[in-house]
Amino acid sequence: MGQFTGVLQVPAGLPVHELETPTLVVDLDAMERNIQRMVALAARHGVHWRAHAKMHKCAALAKQLIDAGSRGCCVQKISEAEAMAAGGIDDIFISNEIVSASKLARAAQLAIALRQRGGQLAIAVDSLQGLQALASSVQQATSNLPDTGPMVDVLVELNVGQNRAGVATPQAVVVLAQAIAQQAGLRFAGLHAYHGGAQHIEEATARQQTMAAVYALVKQTIDALQGVGFSGFTVTGAGSGTCALEAASGLYSELQPGSFALMDAHYTRVESTVGQPAFEPALFVKTQVISRAAGHAVVDAGHKSHAIDSGLPLVWNAGQPPTLVFGNGGDEHGLIHAQPGAVLPELGQALWLVPGHCDPTINLHDAMVGVRGGLTQGVVERLLRIDARGAIW
Amino acid sequence: MGQFTGVLQVPAGLPVHELETPTLVVDLDAMERNIQRMVALAARHGVHWRAHAKMHKCAALAKQLIDAGSRGCCVQKISEAEAMAAGGIDDIFISNEIVSASKLARAAQLAIALRQRGGQLAIAVDSLQGLQALASSVQQATSNLPDTGPMVDVLVELNVGQNRAGVATPQAVVVLAQAIAQQAGLRFAGLHAYHGGAQHIEEATARQQTMAAVYALVKQTIDALQGVGFSGFTVTGAGSGTCALEAASGLYSELQPGSFALMDAHYTRVESTVGQPAFEPALFVKTQVISRAAGHAVVDAGHKSHAIDSGLPLVWNAGQPPTLVFGNGGDEHGLIHAQPGAVLPELGQALWLVPGHCDPTINLHDAMVGVRGGLTQGVVERLLRIDARGAIW
Repeated sequence: MGQFTGVLQVPAGLPVHELETPTLVVDLDAMERNIQRMVALAARHGVHWRAHAKMHKCAALAKQLIDAGSRGCCVQKISEAEAMAAGGIDDIFISNEIVSASKLARAAQLAIALRQRGGQLAIAVDSLQGLQALASSVQQATSNLPDTGPMVDVLVELNVGQNRAGVATPQAVVVLAQAIAQQAGLRFAGLHAYHGGAQHIEEATARQQTMAAVYALVKQTIDALQGVGFSGFTVTGAGSGTCALEAASGLYSELQPGSFALMDAHYTRVESTVGQPAFEPALFVKTQVISRAAGHAVVDAGHKSHAIDSGLPLVWNAGQPPTLVFGNGGDEHGLIHAQPGAVLPELGQALWLVPGHCDPTINLHDAMVGVRGGLTQGVVERLLRIDARGAIW
Repeated sequence: MGQFTGVLQVPAGLPVHELETPTLVVDLDAMERNIQRMVALAARHGVHWRAHAKMHKCAALAKQLIDAGSRGCCVQKISEAEAMAAGGIDDIFISNEIVSASKLARAAQLAIALRQRGGQLAIAVDSLQGLQALASSVQQATSNLPDTGPMVDVLVELNVGQNRAGVATPQAVVVLAQAIAQQAGLRFAGLHAYHGGAQHIEEATARQQTMAAVYALVKQTIDALQGVGFSGFTVTGAGSGTCALEAASGLYSELQPGSFALMDAHYTRVESTVGQPAFEPALFVKTQVISRAAGHAVVDAGHKSHAIDSGLPLVWNAGQPPTLVFGNGGDEHGLIHAQPGAVLPELGQALWLVPGHCDPTINLHDAMVGVRGGLTQGVVERLLRIDARGAIW
């Protein structure tokens, strides 16, 4: 009987055309070109970058990004941080709030472990109550340790227009920064000012206007912090869709993009701004036609193969505008329709999809198949295990 | 350091209020009431039921359903079938087409293994090409075995209005049934006639009209099959949203609902038909407020905690109409808004969400936490491992 291991088994050297479907595939050549584009952007503007691991959740890829120049990684959850640490990453910023005492106890233990390895844990806060809970956990966890100075770096999250988390004003940032500075075990490390939504404003001018308001607020906040004596702190933010703007703003010292390495269909729908690197799709779902009707083909990829929060996938290499269009077929199926004059794929034929959004798509899979040499003639080089898949708690 | 095991660790006996967030929780009492409702429905109409494991992907739950009366289980993928077989399920219907030679070779091996255990593999087809590929695989895999008669049961899928897979006409079903009967190693086992989309027609009368057309086509097909001499075959279909109609139709001998055991928010939005059991929500995401603003609360559950293909989750126990509404906060966050007069939850407070769609939500998690005694006073009874999570290939 076919043994069920729970994980896709793919040997190195397997030709791409023999890959089973649906499979999540990374074009390693394209990914490495994208990484070099980020290296060049950061170097051009003299800023650091800290690639966001919420996107790929893969410790091996986090290491590859660090080798290329990323300053550690960002994550969103304590379990994600634990997974990256278990995979050898030492410098981790949890760019999100944690308020539960049990999670903060884990964060304190993780901070101690990272420090022992010469690394550092940082975490975001946006309330005095959350700060107090963090401080208590860190102080309790370090009470029997020799005094090594502040154990956890703390960044204050400012709401720069996303209207999700973050304090509302520069003055509130100052209040929190001063409270952090008074807590044993903690260090005020900077400002977390991220506008995720702005990246998805499709029209470039509207996006730039939104970001101009973000930068004005960030500038006020930096001035307010400096006005009360803070200096040398990090200003971090910037996703893949706006990072060229933050890099050029003169305000941000660190970018935290994730998607740029693999990209997705949504970003291809967004008008580029001047200076934005030409990141290319490097993440694909290989799928196969399993049924044919007169007017459509049915492929074996659905909501369990790719996330649809940012739209349905594009059919790769189907022309511009695409002659084949992916339609919603539910959890396990996709419906392929052909534009007039185009030919529907035959039963058994493989298609390649570009997922609408890479982050939640990767979180559906246990591994990405890294391919060298392209999607037609390439071969499998290595499996990229998605270590933090499902690590949301 | 907090050890990262990749799987949520929750001991039996833990009080519900100590569960970390976000966690996928099953109210076992509610689930068992739902199962008894299905038992009663099937008994009332004298039909079999074969609960669909695409919903829960959990071998232990498949076993519990079989113990309650389910005739084996349905699955959608060969890897899902392998996972259920590895978990001890012997009677499996892959209610979907498989055309790749490598997958069909696995299916043949699985069929042999199940037969050795006294079980049976069944599979759907909707093309002569797919049938030929299946027959070749089975004939090759069984060529060295003693003749045990047909090894694989084959059901013909008929398109009954979903316009996805399935042959278009009763005549095409007859052609395929006759072709199956001529293939060594295969047995024509019946008709697969499932209309997934109809369950989601919110207005009951419109749904019944759609299903009336389905039943007319199924009746024609049964007559056509009987007209050429077939008898004693299974007629299978029916999801949770329409199963009372199929059960009462006099045409279906087997129902294949999945969601009924756990239910989801989408089904609560659909007007019930006469005879439809009052299945209740039994699947929840426990979440926590991690940030508070003046006008909203931010919880730690987003697209990576629950699927949104059938809408955003409902806040549980928030009144009717709900006074707290969940808004899209991206992959890791939810935005909770309060209706006028209602009070937003405080920082640190727990909320319970009813996911929009149970199947793809469960596929995001490695385990469900089975709770006995309700969501307020209950305790953890057992972890339900989602064995086939990510098994889509």
